[in-house]
Amino acid sequence: MVLGLGTGSTAAFVVAEIGALLSSGKLSDIVGVPTSKRTYEQALSLGIPLSTLDAHPRIDLAIDGADEVDPDLNLVKGRGGALLREKMVEAASDKFVVVADETKLVTGLGGSGLAMPVEVVQFCWKYNQIRLQELFEEEGCEAKLRLDGNGKPYVTDNSNYIVDLYFKTPIKDATAAGKEISSLEGVVEHGLFLDMATAVIIAGKDGVTVTAK
Amino acid sequence: MVLGLGTGSTAAFVVAEIGALLSSGKLSDIVGVPTSKRTYEQALSLGIPLSTLDAHPRIDLAIDGADEVDPDLNLVKGRGGALLREKMVEAASDKFVVVADETKLVTGLGGSGLAMPVEVVQFCWKYNQIRLQELFEEEGCEAKLRLDGNGKPYVTDNSNYIVDLYFKTPIKDATAAGKEISSLEGVVEHGLFLDMATAVIIAGKDGVTVTAK
Repeated sequence: MVLGLGTGSTAAFVVAEIGALLSSGKLSDIVGVPTSKRTYEQALSLGIPLSTLDAHPRIDLAIDGADEVDPDLNLVKGRGGALLREKMVEAASDKFVVVADETKLVTGLGGSGLAMPVEVVQFCWKYNQIRLQELFEEEGCEAKLRLDGNGKPYVTDNSNYIVDLYFKTPIKDATAAGKEISSLEGVVEHGLFLDMATAVIIAGKDGVTVTAK
Repeated sequence: MVLGLGTGSTAAFVVAEIGALLSSGKLSDIVGVPTSKRTYEQALSLGIPLSTLDAHPRIDLAIDGADEVDPDLNLVKGRGGALLREKMVEAASDKFVVVADETKLVTGLGGSGLAMPVEVVQFCWKYNQIRLQELFEEEGCEAKLRLDGNGKPYVTDNSNYIVDLYFKTPIKDATAAGKEISSLEGVVEHGLFLDMATAVIIAGKDGVTVTAK
């Protein structure tokens, strides 16, 4: 089984559990395709056999966290900065299962008021920052360049920058928004993961619920 | 006047001429926005005042070459490797004038049999190479990673790779093709410049012709 390995605090628990199941012999015959350098290193340290999309262009199952989940299982992802590789791997997966806690549930994407990331080339990022903000004037969008811990621009695994979009009100039409963002020259990828998740597992105070498409 | 400065063998003549006109005093009060590091260096050496899209998000006129020009003034560009910055600058230009010789005229884009470049992130480029080739099976497409003079992958100004597409027959629907290419995760930009040129100046054996939209 070819398994897409997500990135982020929740996905790290999943990867750790896969490593434990493998070493105990309860799980065997899997190959992991990591969605970031971080996950690659974690999985490597746990002895999980690893491969790439180049070698395994079709993935059976991907498991990852999400930053927002709407009622139609559309997602915002990428606050961890790995949105591009996550989207490549998860779009190539037959099944894509999201694991999250109930604080991630929103009625409309962008509704958490937290970042919706857009990966842009470094060249003239300010130009794209302004264009992105203007695209979502109606939603009261503020577009900010993501900085690292030292106040310098955060650089993705693909040598790009991230412009984080903060919305006052949820995005009105996420499908149209995704297309408009992608059509901007210099935008590499965005954090709207639409019509991709096949199931979402939500951990809440009252236990675990599973919603499947 | 804010002037977009193209990249490539033809554009280099234009930049040289602008430099000459400036230094002779026949031209004044212009700011150039270069579309590549190469053009930046050439323009700098000629004393052309320079700026960026960040400082000048609206450009009055861009002048550049093209690799293919079809009857509707749609273009293939980017054999010089600068397609992303060219597209960013030229899409921001009120007027975009193309200068080419008559060998660049085609009845349909892709029809020259020469490369139509697609800029992709380095991550899993083989995966995207295969997906790009499959997208144009009908056109007998062969997708090849561009190499530099030393046989190593050619790296763009934005740290990406280029997959060159070679077509046996012209692309059937360039607009649809552009959208399909852009929708692949990991594709940063492609060399189809559709509905962008406002005029094309063609140098042929019988003189110069100008076609405007």
